[in-house]
This record gives sequence, C-alpha cells and structure tokens, in this order.
Amino acid sequence: MFGIPEPLTGANAQAIYDELSDKLARPEFRPRALFERFNIEILCTTDDASDPLTWHQAIRASGWAGDVRPTFRPDALVNIGAPGWRSHLDALGRACGREITSCAALVTALEERRAFFKRMGATATDHGVESAYTAPLDAAEAEAIFARALRGEATADDARRFTGHLLIEEARLSVEDGLTMQLHVGAFRNHDRSVFERFGADKGADIPVATEFTRNLRPLLERFGDDARLTLILFTLDESSYARELAPLAGHYPAVRLGPPWWFNDSLNGMARYFDQVMETAGLWNTAGFNDDTRAFVSIPARHDVWRRASADWLAGLVVRGLVDEPGAVEMAHEMADGLARRAYRLGKA
Amino acid sequence: MFGIPEPLTGANAQAIYDELSDKLARPEFRPRALFERFNIEILCTTDDASDPLTWHQAIRASGWAGDVRPTFRPDALVNIGAPGWRSHLDALGRACGREITSCAALVTALEERRAFFKRMGATATDHGVESAYTAPLDAAEAEAIFARALRGEATADDARRFTGHLLIEEARLSVEDGLTMQLHVGAFRNHDRSVFERFGADKGADIPVATEFTRNLRPLLERFGDDARLTLILFTLDESSYARELAPLAGHYPAVRLGPPWWFNDSLNGMARYFDQVMETAGLWNTAGFNDDTRAFVSIPARHDVWRRASADWLAGLVVRGLVDEPGAVEMAHEMADGLARRAYRLGKA
Amino acid sequence: MFGIPEPLTGANAQAIYDELSDKLARPEFRPRALFERFNIEILCTTDDASDPLTWHQAIRASGWAGDVRPTFRPDALVNIGAPGWRSHLDALGRACGREITSCAALVTALEERRAFFKRMGATATDHGVESAYTAPLDAAEAEAIFARALRGEATADDARRFTGHLLIEEARLSVEDGLTMQLHVGAFRNHDRSVFERFGADKGADIPVATEFTRNLRPLLERFGDDARLTLILFTLDESSYARELAPLAGHYPAVRLGPPWWFNDSLNGMARYFDQVMETAGLWNTAGFNDDTRAFVSIPARHDVWRRASADWLAGLVVRGLVDEPGAVEMAHEMADGLARRAYRLGKA
Repeated sequence: MFGIPEPLTGANAQAIYDELSDKLARPEFRPRALFERFNIEILCTTDDASDPLTWHQAIRASGWAGDVRPTFRPDALVNIGAPGWRSHLDALGRACGREITSCAALVTALEERRAFFKRMGATATDHGVESAYTAPLDAAEAEAIFARALRGEATADDARRFTGHLLIEEARLSVEDGLTMQLHVGAFRNHDRSVFERFGADKGADIPVATEFTRNLRPLLERFGDDARLTLILFTLDESSYARELAPLAGHYPAVRLGPPWWFNDSLNGMARYFDQVMETAGLWNTAGFNDDTRAFVSIPARHDVWRRASADWLAGLVVRGLVDEPGAVEMAHEMADGLARRAYRLGKA
Repeated sequence: MFGIPEPLTGANAQAIYDELSDKLARPEFRPRALFERFNIEILCTTDDASDPLTWHQAIRASGWAGDVRPTFRPDALVNIGAPGWRSHLDALGRACGREITSCAALVTALEERRAFFKRMGATATDHGVESAYTAPLDAAEAEAIFARALRGEATADDARRFTGHLLIEEARLSVEDGLTMQLHVGAFRNHDRSVFERFGADKGADIPVATEFTRNLRPLLERFGDDARLTLILFTLDESSYARELAPLAGHYPAVRLGPPWWFNDSLNGMARYFDQVMETAGLWNTAGFNDDTRAFVSIPARHDVWRRASADWLAGLVVRGLVDEPGAVEMAHEMADGLARRAYRLGKA
Repeated sequence: MFGIPEPLTGANAQAIYDELSDKLARPEFRPRALFERFNIEILCTTDDASDPLTWHQAIRASGWAGDVRPTFRPDALVNIGAPGWRSHLDALGRACGREITSCAALVTALEERRAFFKRMGATATDHGVESAYTAPLDAAEAEAIFARALRGEATADDARRFTGHLLIEEARLSVEDGLTMQLHVGAFRNHDRSVFERFGADKGADIPVATEFTRNLRPLLERFGDDARLTLILFTLDESSYARELAPLAGHYPAVRLGPPWWFNDSLNGMARYFDQVMETAGLWNTAGFNDDTRAFVSIPARHDVWRRASADWLAGLVVRGLVDEPGAVEMAHEMADGLARRAYRLGKA
C-alpha cells in the first residue's frame, strides 16, 4: 500500500511513521483517490439516526461517481441507559422537527429517519448490543419505561427491556421498508476505565462476552423469522455460538443470515474456524458473504484479500477431498467474494 | 442408494423426486429388504414408556430374523410441564392397569414398564432434556410437586426440579435392572412457533442451547457415578462442553461414557472436532463408539460410512505422527466401528 | 526415563510396576539427581502462606547448588468457606506471632508473609479459584464478613465476595512488592464425593466449569490492569474463553499475560488449539511462555519436550505459509521455550 518493503521494528518505527505521514498527505492518498485505486464499488458508512447526512449530501452534490451510502444506526436512541441518551433524543427531535415525548413517538421518528436514510441510498440498519435479548413490551410498559428514562430514572433492567423491545420494533420496520437489519452482539464496551476517562467512549478496550442467541432471539424470530421480507444478519464475538446456535438458526429461519467473522475473529484463523464450524449446518447460501467492517480505510483491500484467499483455500480443500466439484467451488468462490453480500445487503448485481 | 448419479439441482428436482417415490414403492425398498441389504445386525427404536410395543410383538411373531429392539423413553411422563403430560400419565395407568396418583406410584410404574421393555429386548433407556440439572427431592417435596402437576398447577420450576429428581430415580433403576441410560441434553424444542402451530410438536426447528454438566450432574454422579453397574452415556449439542466438562467426567467416573457427536455435530467436521477435543482426556475406551441416531432409515449406511472413514482418518493421523502403533490403530478402528457401541449398549459380541 | 521400551499392557503391568519401584529407590532417581539430569535451572514449589519453608531453608543450608524457590499460595486463608479455614488462620497467626482477628490484620499478615517468601527467593504468588469474580468491599463490609467467618457463620455468598475482595488486595500487594500474580480459574474441586470422603480434599476428580473473565476481572483490572508494575498471568480450563475473552484482555491490558494451556489442556491438541485461538489477538509477547505446572517430577522433561515440539511445529507452519520469516520464527522459538517465562516470572536472564 505504501511501498514500504521492510518489516516494522523498533529501530525503523519513527522513520516509517514519518514516511506514512508524508505519504498520507499526498493527493494520491486522499480518500477518493484510494477509493478509486481500491476499485471499491460501494462503501457504506454507519451514521446516527439523527444525522442529517450532510457529507453524504455533499458527496452526491459533488458530481463524484463513487457510490457511498449511509447505514442507519439507532443505538444511541435505543440505549436509554447510556449517559448521552437525552441529548441524542433531543437531536432526533430536531431532525424530525418536533419533541419526542413517548415511545410511540420515538418509533414513529425512527420510521421517518429510516425513510430519509433509504432515500439517501441506505439499504441496511445496524444495531450493536451487549446481549441479544429481545422481548416485546405492551404499550403501557413501553411508555412507562420511556417516561422513567425521560425523568432520568430508568434502571439497568429498564434499559435492557427497552432495547429488547425496540429490536423487535426495528425488525418490524425492516419487514415494512426492506432495510436489511444487522445485529452485532457481545461487545462489553469501554472495559478499561482509565482509557474511558481520558479519551471518552468507544476509544478501545472493548472485550467480548459470552452470548446467547437461541432463547434471546426467539421473541423476534417467532414474529419475523419466517418472513422473507426480512433479512437479519447476525454477528457474534463468541465463537462457541457458531455451531451451537447461529448455524442452526441460519439454517432454519428464512430471514436469518450469518454474518462473516467479526472483529477479533476477522483473521486468517478466525475465518478457518468459521468455515469449519458454520458451513455444514448453516449452508453457505444462508451466510452474508464478506463485509470488511473496518474503521481503517487503507486496510480494506488487505481484508478482502485475506477473506478471498481463505475462502479459496477452504473451497480447494473441499474439492481435493471430493466434497464439492470444481464448477461448484468456482460458483461458491464468486458468491463468497461478491454475490452473497450483494444479496444480503440488497445492493443489486455487479 | 437409489442409483441416481447426478447432483441434485433445481432443474432435476422434480424428476428425481418422482424417481424416489417410484423406487420407494418397490419391494426392494421396503424396510425389511433395506434392513437386510444394509446388513444391520441390531436396530433399536425409541418408544414411549406406556407403549404396548405392539409392532415389536408383531415383528417377533412374524418369524422374521431381523433383530429390532425397543428403547425405553419416559420423557413424556417425566416432563410435568408439557401440555400432554396428563394424557401420557393416563396412558401409563392403562398400561399398568391402575391409576397413577403419586410420584411413588409413578416410579413403581416406570420400573414395571422398564421390566416389560427389557423382556421385549430393550437394553437401554433414553432421556431428552433441555438441561442436565439433577437434584434429589425428599419424598414429601416430590409428592407435593406431583400433586400440583395433577391439579394442573405445576410451575416451570416444579417441572425443572421434578425432572432433576426423576433422572436420579432412573439412574437408580438402571443400576438395578442394568439398562444403559442415555442422556441427550441441550435441545430447545419447537423454537419456531409458526411451525409448531401448523404442524405440532417435534416437527423441526429445534435449536441447541449452552449446556452445563459439571455442577448439574454432580448429584446423580455422587450417587451412581462410581457404580460399575451403571452405564450413563452423555450426548451434547454444545461442543464447548467436550473438552471442558464431558471428557474429564468420562475420564473420571467409571459409569460415564461419552456418546458420539450428536445431531448438528454428526458430520465430518463435527467428528474431527470431537476426536480432537475429547480423546486425549476421556480416552477412547470411555466413549460409546457410534450409533447413528437417525430418523431417516435410508441414511443409516451413509452415516456409519462417514463415521468409519472419519475414524480411520483420525487413527491414520495418529499412526503417521507416531502417537499410536499400527496394531493399536487397527484395534481402535474395530472398537470405534463396533466393539465400543456393543459394550456400551450391552449388546453382546458380534 | 526409566529405560522401559515396551508399551504398557495389562500383561506387563505388574512387572513394570515392580521395575519402577526398584529404580525409584536407586540413587540416580533421587530428586536432586533427577534435577541435575533434567538440567533444571529453576524449580518453584507452591506453599501455604503460613508455611515456614523449612525444607527450602534446608536446601539452602545444604550447600546444594539447585535453584528451588517457593511460591506464595494463600488460597487456604482467602477461602473462608472451606472447612479448614480457621485452622489455617490460626497457623498464619502462629507464623506471624500474633492472633489474626480482622480482615485488615489478615491483609497485613499476608503482606508480611509475602515479604518472607520473597526473601526466600519467591518471585510469584498463585491463586486457585472456581470463579474469576473480583469486586472490592469497603472496610466495614470486609470486617463484617470476616467476623461472620470467625464465628463460623459465613455464607457461600460471603465466601465469594471475600475472595473477590482479597484478589484485588493481592493484586495491590503485587504492584507494591513485584511478585508476579498467577490466577488459575475454573476447577470444581473434589467433584466425586466418594473419593473425597475416602481420601480427603485435593485427591482428584476436579472437573472444569465454564468461566467468565470479562465482567469478573474488570474491578481488578480497572485498578491495576494498566500498571506495568503488575504481571497478572491468567490460566483457564475453559477454552471457549481463549479467543473470546482472554486473548483480547491480554492484548489490551499491559499487566495481563496469558498462561500456557493448563491441566486438561496441557496436551498436544490443547497446545495446537491454544496457538490457533490465542496468538493472532493476544500476540505471542503477551503470553507467559511455558511452565509445566506438574506434580509428577519425572514428567517435567516430557512436558517441556511436548511444548517445544508443538511450538516449533506451529512456528514452522507460520514460516511455510509466509506469515513470519525464519529469523523471526527462531527468535519466537527461543522466547516460547525460555524468554517469555523468564520475564513473566521475573527470573532474570539465562
């Protein structure tokens, strides 16, 4: 990427840092130049539900041909237990032009924002939760919890139940508007208090926790799991759930797709374990292919390269052992690199 | 099996379906013909504890030489929380010729039925539970729970405790009558409500859950785990328990055998993971070999073939790396294909 | 080791037993002779906190050159729920020359004993707990629990909270005195009641349980996890925590090192799974290399041999696939066999 052949060591670290800084300032390392050099067809950001998507509008207005789309991420509004919840709610009110004073109004506002995101090109939503807990609340319970949250009196259990309720509401909205629903489960955020206190939220030190899907997702799946209008992509940081829960769920429910190995598991070994543990039961066609999910722009080509090589290596092993034939493996390789993700995210053909 | 060489595709699906229907109607695809063609020595069914085993009696009366045996499965009587419990209890009463009005009477009735099954050739019982929880109840508690169940007032916790109590009672009966006890743990049944509502119970969409054995089985094992008269075969859907709990338990307790990879794990990769994670700690001689556990009759040869090839592949790897010698591997291969299962199920020599 | 080439069988068992007994009685199989034959540089025992280390003193006084050091193990004093706790507390009082009548006095006594162990060559402490739970108690709570323990009235929850509090205190003391802190988590001790009743505590039948680190260790890590003066080595019996929790924790916190595969996982396959699941995320330099952790003295060379061969095999695979270069692999091999453990246990250079 940067034309630096030598391995990074303590001795050359400063010199390489300087060289990187220098190169990143050059025109050929500007984001649009890299986007074109990387031959990216579609790039999706994640954006707060209240975000006016100003920069997305600017890209569209600029006449540049790159296809950059937003993704609808309502976590900050759903998590009533987070410190900044009230200010995010106020921002949503401003975005919608009215104060949000009830759970029903919140859901309506989310629905409006989803429509706006969809007009701006979004094809998916994203939900990051520590637990996969879902359970519907009746309207009175939902409003009582929302009222406590407005008064700053919501408990941890209120927060858990409210999130579990809104995940079902979001699934319902996805059935209606066709936005693919992504569920990223199992990160304990801001684990290192000193990092959190010095640098604020989401600055690292997120550590995975064991994750239960079978019981937790059932209330959502018994409503929408068999509905072909929904695509629900599940991501885990707990590999013990691959063979035990996620592959059987993806194999059974028409709405469920299994996302690629995520975060700490997005590695050569992590991919091999995923293929080994998931594919026999889920079936390749119930997975979502690969999305790189990176915050490091220049890592995009390397990540896809690793996935494609790991996929090809796995497929070659199936061919050599006589489990699939060569034309089948070629088709599967194309699907894993391209087709599955396109369909899971409803992005149309190449 | 059916002489159909081409891979199944959307294009040939209907034609192949028709061909299968046609062939299955022919005399050479009748169950007894397949039984003989498959060279099956012993086939065991699972049957409700109240079942009069009419068809087993008919097979015996028919003069046919095939060895088909029942297996005693009392789940429907043990699970006081299931909707049909009362009607199963009534059926048991009819089978025993008297009404079952207490827990003590239930245990006595089960004991009688076990003796009947044993006379009909059974060598094993089978118990399917969501959790491996065991704990003894004193007589007063057991009767109080049973009385609540009769009145239709048993709680979920009653059901859990009653099952935990009866598993210990069943182990005690196995010590006495020598029936091998199989424990299948960790399936959340009827996960998909729409499938359940359309087609009824046990029609699919069973999804595994995480399973704890170490603490849950201790009350049973501290009574009977060191008793050589008991053979307790443990099956899991949670592979994370293989190396952590099941292999150490099978390695320590004389009564415990580890069953082969079950259900979703009964696959080429599932077998490889089982060998990798279990054998070093449990020891091959503390496993139960292979039983195919299928509901699909024509799949029997393929399943045994996969197990035998996977076993041979694993053993060959041990030989090539110098971990076992060739005569040892040959003996182990025979045990894995035949001897271990015969002894675990007390089926006598070949 | 014993010059016995034939494999062990039922037929030769008695003869080999007799030969072993005979050889173990010879001078060349005395512990010091084996120590020298094994070329051991440093051997560390684990010792009760109250132990006067008489035999360590005797070794030092004997003029023998072997480097044998104690390790500080306060479990018996920390676990107020264990039957012999009071007698261990009394022993500590005798060792310190005064009665221990409060939690504060206990912590002071532990601090004194740590200093004594350190003077006797100790560089580490060892803590064996069923759960990794940590949480600080305020002084009043800690003293109230201690008082209940003195009266024999401590509950199971008291015991859990007291251990969780003292682990943090021990970490604080390690920051001060520089003793490396080892945490061995997840063994359910004395699982087989009949073994326990016949032979007493710690005579076998310990079975692993699922173990949670992310939430449980956070109270300790938010105090000392970023403090480079602490080295905290984590050991698990629950491999599902390798990739999910332990590798990310070791990768993030400067104080954390991941210990080698422990106990049931200290095997050829266990090591391969450890390398596969841990190294990409934790990084080799955040692991503690290998300590054999055996109670079987003559097994020491074989255990290190297995680790070194397994390490070399793993490294060779990385070289062949182009993931590390050969000089890098050579350096890593030396570190895995020697350097990492030396630094983790602060044992100085070879």
